[in-house]
Amino acid sequence: MRLTYILVALMLCTAPAWAAIQGECDSRGLYEGEFFPGVGKIPYEGPDSTNPMAFHYYNADEVIMGKPMKEWLRFSVAFWHTMRGDGADPFGSPTKVWPWEDASLDDMELAYRRMRAMFEFLDKLGVDYWCFHDRDIAPEGASLAESNAMLDKVVELAEHLQKETGKKVLWGTAQLFKHPRFMHGAATSPNASVHAYAAAQVKAAMDATLRLGGENYVFWGGREGYHTLLNTDLKLELDNLAAFLKGAVAYKKKIGFKGALLLEPKPQEPTKHQYDWDAATTMGFLNQYGLSDEFKLNVECNHATLAGHSCEHELQLASAYGKLGNIDANTGDAQTGWDTDQFLTDPKEATLVAAVILKQGGLAPGGINFDAKLRRESTDVNDLFYGHISGMDALARGLRNAAQMLEEGILPGMIKDRYSTYSKGVGKKIRDGKVDFVELEKVALASADPAEDLPSARAELYEIVLSRYIR
Amino acid sequence: MRLTYILVALMLCTAPAWAAIQGECDSRGLYEGEFFPGVGKIPYEGPDSTNPMAFHYYNADEVIMGKPMKEWLRFSVAFWHTMRGDGADPFGSPTKVWPWEDASLDDMELAYRRMRAMFEFLDKLGVDYWCFHDRDIAPEGASLAESNAMLDKVVELAEHLQKETGKKVLWGTAQLFKHPRFMHGAATSPNASVHAYAAAQVKAAMDATLRLGGENYVFWGGREGYHTLLNTDLKLELDNLAAFLKGAVAYKKKIGFKGALLLEPKPQEPTKHQYDWDAATTMGFLNQYGLSDEFKLNVECNHATLAGHSCEHELQLASAYGKLGNIDANTGDAQTGWDTDQFLTDPKEATLVAAVILKQGGLAPGGINFDAKLRRESTDVNDLFYGHISGMDALARGLRNAAQMLEEGILPGMIKDRYSTYSKGVGKKIRDGKVDFVELEKVALASADPAEDLPSARAELYEIVLSRYIR
Amino acid sequence: MRLTYILVALMLCTAPAWAAIQGECDSRGLYEGEFFPGVGKIPYEGPDSTNPMAFHYYNADEVIMGKPMKEWLRFSVAFWHTMRGDGADPFGSPTKVWPWEDASLDDMELAYRRMRAMFEFLDKLGVDYWCFHDRDIAPEGASLAESNAMLDKVVELAEHLQKETGKKVLWGTAQLFKHPRFMHGAATSPNASVHAYAAAQVKAAMDATLRLGGENYVFWGGREGYHTLLNTDLKLELDNLAAFLKGAVAYKKKIGFKGALLLEPKPQEPTKHQYDWDAATTMGFLNQYGLSDEFKLNVECNHATLAGHSCEHELQLASAYGKLGNIDANTGDAQTGWDTDQFLTDPKEATLVAAVILKQGGLAPGGINFDAKLRRESTDVNDLFYGHISGMDALARGLRNAAQMLEEGILPGMIKDRYSTYSKGVGKKIRDGKVDFVELEKVALASADPAEDLPSARAELYEIVLSRYIR
Amino acid sequence: MRLTYILVALMLCTAPAWAAIQGECDSRGLYEGEFFPGVGKIPYEGPDSTNPMAFHYYNADEVIMGKPMKEWLRFSVAFWHTMRGDGADPFGSPTKVWPWEDASLDDMELAYRRMRAMFEFLDKLGVDYWCFHDRDIAPEGASLAESNAMLDKVVELAEHLQKETGKKVLWGTAQLFKHPRFMHGAATSPNASVHAYAAAQVKAAMDATLRLGGENYVFWGGREGYHTLLNTDLKLELDNLAAFLKGAVAYKKKIGFKGALLLEPKPQEPTKHQYDWDAATTMGFLNQYGLSDEFKLNVECNHATLAGHSCEHELQLASAYGKLGNIDANTGDAQTGWDTDQFLTDPKEATLVAAVILKQGGLAPGGINFDAKLRRESTDVNDLFYGHISGMDALARGLRNAAQMLEEGILPGMIKDRYSTYSKGVGKKIRDGKVDFVELEKVALASADPAEDLPSARAELYEIVLSRYIR
Repeated sequence: MRLTYILVALMLCTAPAWAAIQGECDSRGLYEGEFFPGVGKIPYEGPDSTNPMAFHYYNADEVIMGKPMKEWLRFSVAFWHTMRGDGADPFGSPTKVWPWEDASLDDMELAYRRMRAMFEFLDKLGVDYWCFHDRDIAPEGASLAESNAMLDKVVELAEHLQKETGKKVLWGTAQLFKHPRFMHGAATSPNASVHAYAAAQVKAAMDATLRLGGENYVFWGGREGYHTLLNTDLKLELDNLAAFLKGAVAYKKKIGFKGALLLEPKPQEPTKHQYDWDAATTMGFLNQYGLSDEFKLNVECNHATLAGHSCEHELQLASAYGKLGNIDANTGDAQTGWDTDQFLTDPKEATLVAAVILKQGGLAPGGINFDAKLRRESTDVNDLFYGHISGMDALARGLRNAAQMLEEGILPGMIKDRYSTYSKGVGKKIRDGKVDFVELEKVALASADPAEDLPSARAELYEIVLSRYIR
Repeated sequence: MRLTYILVALMLCTAPAWAAIQGECDSRGLYEGEFFPGVGKIPYEGPDSTNPMAFHYYNADEVIMGKPMKEWLRFSVAFWHTMRGDGADPFGSPTKVWPWEDASLDDMELAYRRMRAMFEFLDKLGVDYWCFHDRDIAPEGASLAESNAMLDKVVELAEHLQKETGKKVLWGTAQLFKHPRFMHGAATSPNASVHAYAAAQVKAAMDATLRLGGENYVFWGGREGYHTLLNTDLKLELDNLAAFLKGAVAYKKKIGFKGALLLEPKPQEPTKHQYDWDAATTMGFLNQYGLSDEFKLNVECNHATLAGHSCEHELQLASAYGKLGNIDANTGDAQTGWDTDQFLTDPKEATLVAAVILKQGGLAPGGINFDAKLRRESTDVNDLFYGHISGMDALARGLRNAAQMLEEGILPGMIKDRYSTYSKGVGKKIRDGKVDFVELEKVALASADPAEDLPSARAELYEIVLSRYIR
Repeated sequence: MRLTYILVALMLCTAPAWAAIQGECDSRGLYEGEFFPGVGKIPYEGPDSTNPMAFHYYNADEVIMGKPMKEWLRFSVAFWHTMRGDGADPFGSPTKVWPWEDASLDDMELAYRRMRAMFEFLDKLGVDYWCFHDRDIAPEGASLAESNAMLDKVVELAEHLQKETGKKVLWGTAQLFKHPRFMHGAATSPNASVHAYAAAQVKAAMDATLRLGGENYVFWGGREGYHTLLNTDLKLELDNLAAFLKGAVAYKKKIGFKGALLLEPKPQEPTKHQYDWDAATTMGFLNQYGLSDEFKLNVECNHATLAGHSCEHELQLASAYGKLGNIDANTGDAQTGWDTDQFLTDPKEATLVAAVILKQGGLAPGGINFDAKLRRESTDVNDLFYGHISGMDALARGLRNAAQMLEEGILPGMIKDRYSTYSKGVGKKIRDGKVDFVELEKVALASADPAEDLPSARAELYEIVLSRYIR
Repeated sequence: MRLTYILVALMLCTAPAWAAIQGECDSRGLYEGEFFPGVGKIPYEGPDSTNPMAFHYYNADEVIMGKPMKEWLRFSVAFWHTMRGDGADPFGSPTKVWPWEDASLDDMELAYRRMRAMFEFLDKLGVDYWCFHDRDIAPEGASLAESNAMLDKVVELAEHLQKETGKKVLWGTAQLFKHPRFMHGAATSPNASVHAYAAAQVKAAMDATLRLGGENYVFWGGREGYHTLLNTDLKLELDNLAAFLKGAVAYKKKIGFKGALLLEPKPQEPTKHQYDWDAATTMGFLNQYGLSDEFKLNVECNHATLAGHSCEHELQLASAYGKLGNIDANTGDAQTGWDTDQFLTDPKEATLVAAVILKQGGLAPGGINFDAKLRRESTDVNDLFYGHISGMDALARGLRNAAQMLEEGILPGMIKDRYSTYSKGVGKKIRDGKVDFVELEKVALASADPAEDLPSARAELYEIVLSRYIR
């Protein structure tokens, strides 16, 4: 791939079928060349560079706390947003005219073409991973069988391109929300035939993920919820969702897929209420149905804020229970009530996100997927680079900041001190479950009122200390 | 009690100590008489009455679906709001001057006086149950021991008044959020001595609840959460909360308290984040820590909406898992981001709430507690009656509506039909866990695309049907 | 029109060109017949009817407070939602397959066909008015000139159908938000050529509205706002918006259009911030730019709640300043942060809405437009009837309730009493501007502290009184 | 004052009355000494200092874009939060035990003592301005006359301390929301006697502000709004509010107060709806009532976000119309629906705030008032310093960042380019009001579709450019 895009575009060629899939020539016998002809490999130029087509903080191989940045961050590009995002919104038509969207081609040729553009983008951006939805990489056919066959062919091309470039799948997933058949839900549809169809689609998507060496498989239940409780059997739908996930676990084991299974919480949109509302709800659901050992979470920052939580909260909560498997790195607009999927650029938020990653020793086999899209009005193909660069730089900057913060140890030390009463005496007995209310009452009756020397929580001092690391 | 308040107030008397506690005479040797002298027992007058001091829908003994209304609804008055609410808010001083708040009395005399006023209110309103916080019924002393002793004395009076009037405690609880010692949390305080103190307080409050024959005991963790994650050890705090609840369960068993233990979810306020965020989070927490068999939920409507859910959602979700133990009946303002604890008056919402109660066969041993307060600007003592009448009438109206809706069966039948594919064929196998993804794929491949004959969800029709019952 | 749909569909015919436009025959020489063959004229059957295809409260000619219901309510169907709504959402493809969307037809034939379906719908529903966007009734051509020409032809058909049926246009508008050319705004686009294009489109839409006898013309500035302030010249955009509206006023006068001009506030979506945020902002903008005499407001309930206000607030505020020109009757979901455009069905909200209409003596020349759509999952063509019936019935019910409330006069009397101090003495002087701070201080120094006998605001009593009217 | 606090505390002294007021000795004849004995003057130590009791960015006399930082920022400490904030919240009692709150003193002695503490704090912090509420600096007496007299005496002390230290009043205001007499509103109370009382209080507060050389006078109408529309005459209340402000303007002129009058928008809390909802609403109200020339706005960041706007939006909007008079610098919690009044610490937000200040050439006679308070759990007296240092440093950092951004001119240049079509041709005619819709249509018909070469809005690139200045 690296070589191909330096060749001159549109030269005549006589390619065999396989070459056509590979992209050296398109079906009209024309070599299609580069999709981003003005862009080379994005270099690292440091914070003072004014070149927007360069990294200012992300230096892939630079070692931070014992590991290269790229291993801490494990960035991934999302096929759906980056290749398929067309700028449509509920009040507007598509705005993007990407070079790979050649209306003269048929669906499969277009699918190949997008895949080749994706790999060129990954290569130039210097990102090792990508994520996909089945129906975004391959077209939907006239029947499920035909859709499966088309998916297989696109996966074949992706497999080839991966081999050629060394790029890898971070995770795959099935898109179970766009087609009208899923309008009432997929696993939670009131129609059992839709549940069956969804299972078949997950089966094929998991097969594809396995074939591509995907390191995780994700479930986002975009319509697993309700519009109104008036017409909904809540308990039955939750039971059916659990049955579906059990089926997925069984199938994963059957085919020997070793990657992690991840649920992605989101509170609502497009539904009024989605069952995987937030990290706590989703972990609770897993516990309720005995699925806790089989799943981790894919936490998305914008979904966190829509649920009324800070992104940091969702990350810390999932991490506290060993369930933080992947991060869908984006950010929302603090004043809008829907998912804006913007690239996360705020240095403070990025620092807090990175601190969670560092504290749990990394995300692998998960990583950081840019479930982020250009604004509708960003219509230059270069904006795709600007968006990803802004996100990668912000998180790399956050990683540097958080590493310094943890290495200096001031803030962690302050927290440790704050809870020190639980390391000894009655506090330790509480932690160890070795004291009952009768004894605790005796302690309380025998002690001075704790109000008398309760330390300040010093939130403002913590902010000062933190602010020194936001660089 | 019924007889006492028809006597003339302020007559001279020479009461022995016990009578003073009972309230026939105050400590100055004056008979204190009625607190609501212009109000008699609130009668039921039907929907067309224009008398605001009458019930228009609540007819305690009228039988609805086989039980008297009072048994379905099990109304309770909250001591804290009704007796202690003073109208203070973050920007304003107290506004209420209730007749029982006689500044010339000492703390214990005032506590007795309030308790007597409470029982007069219950009697006139025709409500059988009341709920209390320890520190709202009795003053805080100079030491825990003194506080306990004062609580005991007030409980002694309450016990006496209960015997005299037949009124009962729906639930008791410990107030673990007002005193500065709990500013960082109670069970989740970073200071183990505060955890111990909180345990001692719960122990005493549970003893009091047992002594008063309380049918439930509630935990609302008003400061069990955090202001900022910067200074917080999230996991340790959650572990400590679980340890605390385990201690409470053990103590309950030790003393032979047979009532239900209830957790009350609230997302935030006064904290930025409270651990019992909503029903799903709280049920998940119970599962995580093996506490699920020991607790039910006390769902509060205004807390539901603050968490981004409809009240109906929280009720249905809790009920679906057999965890709906009690309802704190109030409503919020749809446009404010804090707890307004208004009386629920909307007929549609009341109908949806009542439908959940009817469907699960009632709430006992729980009930409906009016965790609702007057607006700050409502300063007439009669407003206390107006508020409770509005709430009781709304829920009674809802109960009548919901009963008609369930008895006619049209709406439930529509839902049943909607999910009928799960009662047979592959749908039944999914429910029974007897089908795997391989077989489901076969079904999907062999069937027509379910999109072809997917029925409409008909949300608008359900609304029409529902609206006929909103009377 | 009334006769045509009882004829047998698909009979062969040999219609001249004009008849083809009229719809007696389509371009293939087939008579197209009815679009809603199973539905007759919706009858009024009263509140106890269980027939969902009947009105339970809306009885068009029944006189309420001196006017027939239809004159108070002046209902209108929105062409865009009802004829063009396809069920697409940001995560999903279209779900509706309406009988008039015949993919074998060309754009203009389809436009005619939809228009004929619209008039059949109006007739069967018994609604006298309709509203339209230019680009929803007619296709966009390859050039502005072509678009204008196509609009003219569709308007010609509409004119004909209006004459035939007596239906009327409540208001027209230009759709300036869907096409990519408007992605940065229309009047507020950073590109002057877009501003010019938008002006041309409004000119043509106003011409069409005039020709159809429209009683109002509406501006909804769906992209008149910003995504991010980072790239925005806020002041210039506001100035340009004002310049645009001045141009519209001048053009209105030039062509002799006598209808009202209306601005429709909405806070955001699709933009992050829209300049016509809410009623207060929009009225302030009009004042700022000297446009106040030329515009009224079209208040939409769901837009009100998105802006953090109750619908009632927006209506009362606009009405207080004589600016309430029209209501876009819908409702939002109290828990979602985007525009759901649901049919308003809540009896309490409908009563509060209707009370404002009654108090200001009606909305004419404005009315109540159903800017409301079916849920995405409502896919039966009959759902269109259910939706509109639910909305019409709710508002008719509200009208009956509000009329009783106003006629009995209890609630209005309570409010009048509450403010009675402004009808005399110093209060009257304050109202008349005849007292200064020096004199007010003297009054205050000479009077008892007003805190001493400040009446209760009695919000709970007002709720009780109101609830009696919610029938 | 500078000398006094280095003297040994509690030495015996025999002070005359005046000295007692000045604070050299308290009423018991003891010298009271320092309130912050461990803290000296806060030094500037630069960004790498780890001393939290030092400035890292704020270097008062350092010149930025031609003016010293202190002139750009004009920081002010708010008396109410800093001296009177006691940590009470709706669910909790006070938590702070500040050294100046000596319960053994009477109200006036305490008032003097707090004022002396305030000036010590200003001096040590290096802030030149302070702001006050009348009732927070002086106690409320048994009558208005007595309250006025007490206010005069405290103002006398403040005047003396100002002369001694050179500190100045940024603005004064009247607290018209805390006392029960204002529970229904002040200027908008349904009781005219309350309106009169409020006028008298503003008169006295304006006198005090004049006497202290205050540079502005602020109105925050904490209860000028409603709890429920059910009992509210909206129009009458708005009229009365306007009458009140007219009275204030007249009085200002009468006494020759030259400072600016400022309205402070806030959407709600404690009311459900406050009439000065946001900047647009407040400017619109001023226009509506002909008050626009007499008032500017005091924009508070946390109020902005509660109204659904970014702080930057409110600042830019007010600034665009020449109405940005003062900033109440604080920040809210993005996930809470009430006013948290936290110190603004985020470097990105501070940069955006500072950019508005720089672009309009400064805020004088207004400034930046820290309407910010410690978290309830921050109970060390040093936390008061930490809080203010964090806020001052953040804004100083923002000022440095914004200055670099503006001086380099890249971002402003990008915006200028974006709107360049309005500087020439038809765009210029639009701006100059020299083109009508007929001509604009001609332009549009004669031009290519603007969609064809509409530039990208490049939001992601703007973010990259901005991020380079967030240091």
